[in-house]
Amino acid sequence: MPSVVLLGTGNVATHLFYAFQKAKTVEIVQVYGRKKPGLNYFEALTKVTNDTSQILDADIYILAISDSSVAQMSQSLKHKKGLVVHTSGSVSLDTILSKRRGVFYPLQTFTKGREADFSKVPICIEAENAEDFTLLKTLGTAISGKVHQISTQQRKKLHLSAVLVNNFTNHLFHIAQEICKENDIPFHLLQPLISETVNKIRHLAPIDAQTGPARRNDMETMQLHLEQFKNPLQKKIYLRLSESIKKTYEKEL
Amino acid sequence: MPSVVLLGTGNVATHLFYAFQKAKTVEIVQVYGRKKPGLNYFEALTKVTNDTSQILDADIYILAISDSSVAQMSQSLKHKKGLVVHTSGSVSLDTILSKRRGVFYPLQTFTKGREADFSKVPICIEAENAEDFTLLKTLGTAISGKVHQISTQQRKKLHLSAVLVNNFTNHLFHIAQEICKENDIPFHLLQPLISETVNKIRHLAPIDAQTGPARRNDMETMQLHLEQFKNPLQKKIYLRLSESIKKTYEKEL
Repeated sequence: MPSVVLLGTGNVATHLFYAFQKAKTVEIVQVYGRKKPGLNYFEALTKVTNDTSQILDADIYILAISDSSVAQMSQSLKHKKGLVVHTSGSVSLDTILSKRRGVFYPLQTFTKGREADFSKVPICIEAENAEDFTLLKTLGTAISGKVHQISTQQRKKLHLSAVLVNNFTNHLFHIAQEICKENDIPFHLLQPLISETVNKIRHLAPIDAQTGPARRNDMETMQLHLEQFKNPLQKKIYLRLSESIKKTYEKEL
Repeated sequence: MPSVVLLGTGNVATHLFYAFQKAKTVEIVQVYGRKKPGLNYFEALTKVTNDTSQILDADIYILAISDSSVAQMSQSLKHKKGLVVHTSGSVSLDTILSKRRGVFYPLQTFTKGREADFSKVPICIEAENAEDFTLLKTLGTAISGKVHQISTQQRKKLHLSAVLVNNFTNHLFHIAQEICKENDIPFHLLQPLISETVNKIRHLAPIDAQTGPARRNDMETMQLHLEQFKNPLQKKIYLRLSESIKKTYEKEL
């Protein structure tokens, strides 16, 4: 049973902690947090510290902290024997300054107060030797059915893709909700369409699932839509996305 | 039991035909299609014609045709007593030239060969008097549990919103799939994230569900992402959407 010190008290750290606890095949020996209040939640459940010199020994140290803190935090673990991994989508493996280093990147969006079903969360792992890779695989399979070897280069592309399919998609939902609010339309009317948009691509590649005025190059409808935007930035978003859709399908028109 | 003549043989027409057939409380007396081959599918199931002078009498005529054909097609129905409705998100009610006119807009994306669960599809209806409204409500509730009175103005906003949450979202999925392909990453790794993006907003407003570098104004990560785009149009999409997210949250930063 691998032992783990979890460094961080934010969203990812909390969700990982919860998943490891549930798994019962990973021993969380300690949680480190920079500030004491962040540790309150963990204190009743495991050992905690806010002092880097008091970090206990473990097989794996998981840095579930902001990207910009990874290098500095790993510096504090330089003399530890265990494997040091970060959980970031965009930080290179070699940002970690320890001898044994790796990546343990759960590809999901985590929300405070909303339990994540880790069994379906892809865990993207990377290590520098077979032994460390096996250790990370053991850690990953303890909480998820989907553990994948992903290189730093691939992980950066995956993180970019995640921004497209999650961050940007969610922002489009937000703009739609604003439009609905302004016009006394209940937003839940769009919910079945949103669900179908996602269900469709389980069976169909997105390129084949595309519909709408931009795909048909229906200039009249697009013009009508553009006239409805009050926010010039939203108008630009509409224009750019429509242009990109048009370009994707122009050969078939 | 209202009787219906369905005009059109495309995606929306086919899905509506199927839903009405299943409902058994709507009588489809005829399907009209401009060209004979399009009628092949319906011929074994009901009367068909490709001659506007041969259109039978019915309580409701449903124009499930392209936006640009609505006016002309309704001209052919000018002397009919029945109610003439179109199924478009963006065409005004008064584009229909008949005396009795209305709108029957199913808010969903329809895919050829993929059965739509109409019971959850919001049907947005509009009519010019109480009697016609009641008739459309009867027609709508025959196939869906969600029938809503939506004005022309609201419907146009709803259609714009549908483009945002469906067309644009799907195109972002496509760009992500392209990035994955180019880097030997299985696209299905993003599937749980995509599902969670949508599941989240059942419980949380999109504005509260937002995460990512643009929301945090994490310039470094955004810069790293921008450098990865080969396609200048995709770069612009990234820039505009990030800018819009930043603007939405700039007060809290």
